[in-house]
Amino acid sequence: MPGPLTLEEIVARLGGRVAGAGATPIHQVASLERADARHISFFTGARHRPQLAATRAGAVIVGPEGEGETTRPRIVAENPYLYFARVSQLFNPLIAQPPGVHASAVVAKSAQLGARVSIGAGCVVADDVVIGDDTCLYPRVVVYRACTIGRRVIVHSGVVIGADGFGIADDAGRWVKIPQIGSVRIGDDVEIGANTTIDRGALDDTVIEEGVKLDNQIQIGHNTRIGAHTAVAGCVGIAGSADIGRHCTFGGAAMILGHLTIVDHVNVSAGTFVSRSILKPGTYTGIYPVDEHENWARGAAWLRRKGKKHE
Amino acid sequence: MPGPLTLEEIVARLGGRVAGAGATPIHQVASLERADARHISFFTGARHRPQLAATRAGAVIVGPEGEGETTRPRIVAENPYLYFARVSQLFNPLIAQPPGVHASAVVAKSAQLGARVSIGAGCVVADDVVIGDDTCLYPRVVVYRACTIGRRVIVHSGVVIGADGFGIADDAGRWVKIPQIGSVRIGDDVEIGANTTIDRGALDDTVIEEGVKLDNQIQIGHNTRIGAHTAVAGCVGIAGSADIGRHCTFGGAAMILGHLTIVDHVNVSAGTFVSRSILKPGTYTGIYPVDEHENWARGAAWLRRKGKKHE
Amino acid sequence: MPGPLTLEEIVARLGGRVAGAGATPIHQVASLERADARHISFFTGARHRPQLAATRAGAVIVGPEGEGETTRPRIVAENPYLYFARVSQLFNPLIAQPPGVHASAVVAKSAQLGARVSIGAGCVVADDVVIGDDTCLYPRVVVYRACTIGRRVIVHSGVVIGADGFGIADDAGRWVKIPQIGSVRIGDDVEIGANTTIDRGALDDTVIEEGVKLDNQIQIGHNTRIGAHTAVAGCVGIAGSADIGRHCTFGGAAMILGHLTIVDHVNVSAGTFVSRSILKPGTYTGIYPVDEHENWARGAAWLRRKGKKHE
Repeated sequence: MPGPLTLEEIVARLGGRVAGAGATPIHQVASLERADARHISFFTGARHRPQLAATRAGAVIVGPEGEGETTRPRIVAENPYLYFARVSQLFNPLIAQPPGVHASAVVAKSAQLGARVSIGAGCVVADDVVIGDDTCLYPRVVVYRACTIGRRVIVHSGVVIGADGFGIADDAGRWVKIPQIGSVRIGDDVEIGANTTIDRGALDDTVIEEGVKLDNQIQIGHNTRIGAHTAVAGCVGIAGSADIGRHCTFGGAAMILGHLTIVDHVNVSAGTFVSRSILKPGTYTGIYPVDEHENWARGAAWLRRKGKKHE
Repeated sequence: MPGPLTLEEIVARLGGRVAGAGATPIHQVASLERADARHISFFTGARHRPQLAATRAGAVIVGPEGEGETTRPRIVAENPYLYFARVSQLFNPLIAQPPGVHASAVVAKSAQLGARVSIGAGCVVADDVVIGDDTCLYPRVVVYRACTIGRRVIVHSGVVIGADGFGIADDAGRWVKIPQIGSVRIGDDVEIGANTTIDRGALDDTVIEEGVKLDNQIQIGHNTRIGAHTAVAGCVGIAGSADIGRHCTFGGAAMILGHLTIVDHVNVSAGTFVSRSILKPGTYTGIYPVDEHENWARGAAWLRRKGKKHE
Repeated sequence: MPGPLTLEEIVARLGGRVAGAGATPIHQVASLERADARHISFFTGARHRPQLAATRAGAVIVGPEGEGETTRPRIVAENPYLYFARVSQLFNPLIAQPPGVHASAVVAKSAQLGARVSIGAGCVVADDVVIGDDTCLYPRVVVYRACTIGRRVIVHSGVVIGADGFGIADDAGRWVKIPQIGSVRIGDDVEIGANTTIDRGALDDTVIEEGVKLDNQIQIGHNTRIGAHTAVAGCVGIAGSADIGRHCTFGGAAMILGHLTIVDHVNVSAGTFVSRSILKPGTYTGIYPVDEHENWARGAAWLRRKGKKHE
């Protein structure tokens, strides 16, 4: 990690403007609650005023409207949260694992690894896999045969890329397996959270475009496409052959049926089940409101009656 | 993989009937969009007419009602999707991993492995496990002690079979763990998707009967039984001691409470929470309809009011 | 395992009272259905009367009100289920893996392991991890750098502790990763089910307090706190920065939004989505009632109409 940087040195690299003592040395980022004089923290809104008043941070990143909220040394930036992300990257690596292939990893001879690729302990990389420069697989990732992963991709532990999609045909009550002969293609700058699974395509490929961010325990069915720069929170399931646009967001545990289309710039709220295509940008929701159990029971009984045929 | 087969050779093996040039050689299956002259594709309904019109496939599998939809060489079969599955199996293996135990796998001496079993890299097979002939464990599967797996079972990466069920008893606010001394028994011809977990029984066994197909990231609680030939899509959770019938289907992210019964031939829609026994075959659903956020908020507020005591 | 114990020997260790032949020797626990003369079973309520009448168990644990339900040798205890848990612990170990580090595990030199720690095959324990006495990691657990795990903790296969939290900032349509420099702290006597993931904090730590029991496939976001002795069933997701109280229970597949507070002694029903803080103890529910598909469709259409603007 670099040594300390003064506020002046930080704004020289990242832009923004210093208010107060520009020579204040910063060693690390921290939350308002835990920061001490060596740290820079950030302030994003009125609900954190008590923490701002009590902080011992050496400096704080604030927005233009927050400049007067504190007299501590501060950096004024248009988007303090984004600025904080950039500052944190000055002091901390994005990847906490050195380049190279760990001795316990199993990498097929036919796999192609780019420059500075990092393959963690216990990873399995099968035949004909291609992995781009500067990509990191944390321990215990499995990549099935012939999948391709772009550059600067971060894959967390327990991820499985390219397992067979769920393709079965009904033969008079017996299921006949459909060989899954497509693959998975993952673009540059994607991040994939722990224990997420991305299935290979049945015939064509499953595609995760560049800049997509996937949290933990997400399931992506075969032949799905996820458009560039879409972000998906934890526990989301996306069934097969879904066509998801660019710049979308999916809240945690949202569930998306297969064979549907979601256009660019759609936000699906957490806990929402999407059962049909969404063809207009906007925010979409479908959550049963939580309530005290007895209130819920009354409302649910009422809703159930509405479904009976003769009422 | 076999060399090319003509349409005549395919129908000689699988039945059906050729229309058009029966000597057309086929090397592989493909989607209508990606197929070229070496490929056979399939057509299952009117909504794929544009792709059928544009395809360059060497041949197409169609149903009786679809025979006139194209002039390309074709195979006419009662169930084109099922026929396609069979054709794909002619050209592609069901299992993409050779028999044998990978050097990095850890297999207990007391484990019994059948003929042609394939144990992938990083698998862990504990004491007294029994695995039937022709079964494949892809990399990084864990099978806890004394579990049994049938023949021709396919287990994808990250699956955990036989971890302790969630058995705890309340002792004045402290949880006391109940040892889980049952096991897991998995029948023949089961497939288990990536990162799915199947817990061992508390006292008796958790049972997955023959022909069951489980997609990715499914959780199966202790002492549950899943009847033969039932198919379960991704992200489904089935709590402990559920008794699930044969020939059922569960859509993605369906959730099943424990200690209930679902009879044979029940279809549970994706995203549905089943909180009580289902004793009659049929299709069951319970999904909050997704809508634009403001519409949802009005409907939800209204539903919440219905639950209040004095309205 | 110990040899047989008579009913008298059991009550001498665990309390309770014998009715019938106190010299009956017991070798193991079993369910009412599977028990034979060597086994002790338990009876917790009227709905198991048929099994009690038919059992061949050598002895049965009953509550005071159940003493007259059978003439078999029995132990009368205030809480038969809890008593059964204690008896099962006499005959069965809590952990089915010997102490020591398996040869295939990868443990960093800087990691500190307490006494009698058991690290299973294929585990990866990164730098600066601290693991307390008598803790067991089953095969294929990953613990990222600098996380701490208490004493007597049981971690099942596939668990990932300390992967990066989902921290991203929007930069004009591109996501900028926020380094996750907090850690995970897990208290004593915690159990963590298979394939559960617990993310490291963004700045401060993610905290699981003592006695928490987590089932399989749970996702815990960064900076969340889970209070002591809370139990969480399978497939639950808890988003980032949630502050969860002590002695709470979460039913399976419950989902908890981030940045909210749930006080002590709250029970969240299975399948419930919690989108706002819960500041009063009690039971909270929000489940769309399952019904035959046609009934559901009518009810849902009706609810959707209630959300339209001009009705």
